[in-house]
Amino acid sequence: MSDLPNKTTVVGAGDIGAGWAALLVGAGWPVSLYDTDARRMDAAMESVPQRARALVDLQRATPGTVERGLREFSHAHSILQACKGADWVIEATSEDLMAKQRVFQSLDEVAEPHAIITSSSSGLKIEDIAARCRNQGRCMVAHPLNPPELIPLIELIPGRIAKPEAVAQAQTYLRALGRIPITLKKSVPGHVVGRIAAAVWRESIQLVLDGVVDVDDLDRAISLGPALGWAAAGPHLSYHLAAGQGGVRGFLQQLMQSFETWWSGLAKWDKLDFEQQQALVNAIERSYHDNIGKLRGARDRRLSAIVRALEESRQ
Amino acid sequence: MSDLPNKTTVVGAGDIGAGWAALLVGAGWPVSLYDTDARRMDAAMESVPQRARALVDLQRATPGTVERGLREFSHAHSILQACKGADWVIEATSEDLMAKQRVFQSLDEVAEPHAIITSSSSGLKIEDIAARCRNQGRCMVAHPLNPPELIPLIELIPGRIAKPEAVAQAQTYLRALGRIPITLKKSVPGHVVGRIAAAVWRESIQLVLDGVVDVDDLDRAISLGPALGWAAAGPHLSYHLAAGQGGVRGFLQQLMQSFETWWSGLAKWDKLDFEQQQALVNAIERSYHDNIGKLRGARDRRLSAIVRALEESRQ
Repeated sequence: MSDLPNKTTVVGAGDIGAGWAALLVGAGWPVSLYDTDARRMDAAMESVPQRARALVDLQRATPGTVERGLREFSHAHSILQACKGADWVIEATSEDLMAKQRVFQSLDEVAEPHAIITSSSSGLKIEDIAARCRNQGRCMVAHPLNPPELIPLIELIPGRIAKPEAVAQAQTYLRALGRIPITLKKSVPGHVVGRIAAAVWRESIQLVLDGVVDVDDLDRAISLGPALGWAAAGPHLSYHLAAGQGGVRGFLQQLMQSFETWWSGLAKWDKLDFEQQQALVNAIERSYHDNIGKLRGARDRRLSAIVRALEESRQ
Repeated sequence: MSDLPNKTTVVGAGDIGAGWAALLVGAGWPVSLYDTDARRMDAAMESVPQRARALVDLQRATPGTVERGLREFSHAHSILQACKGADWVIEATSEDLMAKQRVFQSLDEVAEPHAIITSSSSGLKIEDIAARCRNQGRCMVAHPLNPPELIPLIELIPGRIAKPEAVAQAQTYLRALGRIPITLKKSVPGHVVGRIAAAVWRESIQLVLDGVVDVDDLDRAISLGPALGWAAAGPHLSYHLAAGQGGVRGFLQQLMQSFETWWSGLAKWDKLDFEQQQALVNAIERSYHDNIGKLRGARDRRLSAIVRALEESRQ
């Protein structure tokens, strides 16, 4: 097993693919980027260098490493060219099962025999994505969050198909990139993060539509409250520590009744009708006037400051 | 309206009451603590100075201020003595509506006429808590998270009863303490944070009981992933920034179908039966061997590091 790949490939030049490429470039690794859409490809050839260089200002990369990575960052003109010589192929196309199956079928044919292939899917099962591949043992989900170059978590999902050697190789690469892979024991729709995020967003939408709180106040409440708590200790540990010496047993005694009341009143819908979608979009756009680039810049500064602080507090 | 209270009162010496007292002492404010339970009171007279002094190591308070606060930190022997001369009375008794109604009825009688009275309830409505009070206009919920001395958010809920002057006074005190009050537009069970936390915990429990992920891996996944994202940008803003220039409209186009799939598969139960509670408690205790004090210390170091980083990134 090799510690560092000689070359990496990113297939799909949207926001997540560009983020993977920025992360790899920021680590000084050679990256070949490929997308069938020429406009998306052109946009990424501009945004990846910007995002990789931004990592220097955010104290997440050094200028020398980024410039070395950029010298080996290239635009492939075919999926074959993209994959040639690559040890790790990252799929980051749109979240559409049929499309991903076709991409994986091509990758299965053109990737080097020893290469591992990971899908960035936020919620599909690898068993389905790789259904048409002959060499399924090297296929798995490695799901990053947005933006991939700043958030350390990667959900790694071998499902029933990836071989242990392939999973170990992916873990090695991810750790060398400063990522923290968490390996799930089985495939479920949305993995772990998508399901938790869906639960949070449904209730967040309901609270705004019910007029309990405005969009920006809800966002600030989560940011300055439970998100800080969960960043320092996940949900289960938080409650284990919330009832003095009694641990989670004491917590359940004190607050299970409250949770039962709250659970019974949570939003239950699984579709947001068109009028509600419009009301939500309008409320969000009313709350956030600044352009997307400026809002993302501010978000990325806060995010990298938190990640640095956590790294320092662990040392 | 005064900027600083001459004296504050905390009624209820459990974990949350002791946290409020540590926060107030850490700011150098005079505090009178009262609880009907002598054992809880004795424990708090030990833990409050410890927690207040810990704020110095965590770089959340200065030694001089803490020691000044401790000189004016006292144990009251009656609710009347506790409230005498206090401008702000904080109720932090157990989450039981009938018990809180009785406490509020007493506070209504003994608190100074100009004092504001805030409840730390994590989910009850102030209209219900203050139902037996004559002077309801000074009553509201000011809900802190655990631990109150470290997490900046306070959910402030005037409901239909608190007068604007009383709310403004509470906001002034809370901001002077370095807290960030978010005012909700109406009372709902669980407020905002309890509802979101209930949604997160239900799905977190389900994922563990379904064998998708172990307790500690789920906690780490949330801590190193979505919690960091939400700490930097709340749920609505996160999705507004997750689809390039398209904003939340583009995001809904790309991912609404995925969310609908995930929503339809989320846990729906509103009671956790005894066997499941036992399975959960066992899984949490298997994952976290260290004693509660040690785990809390590590959590508090991470939490204060994050809070400091966010404060610095805003400057």
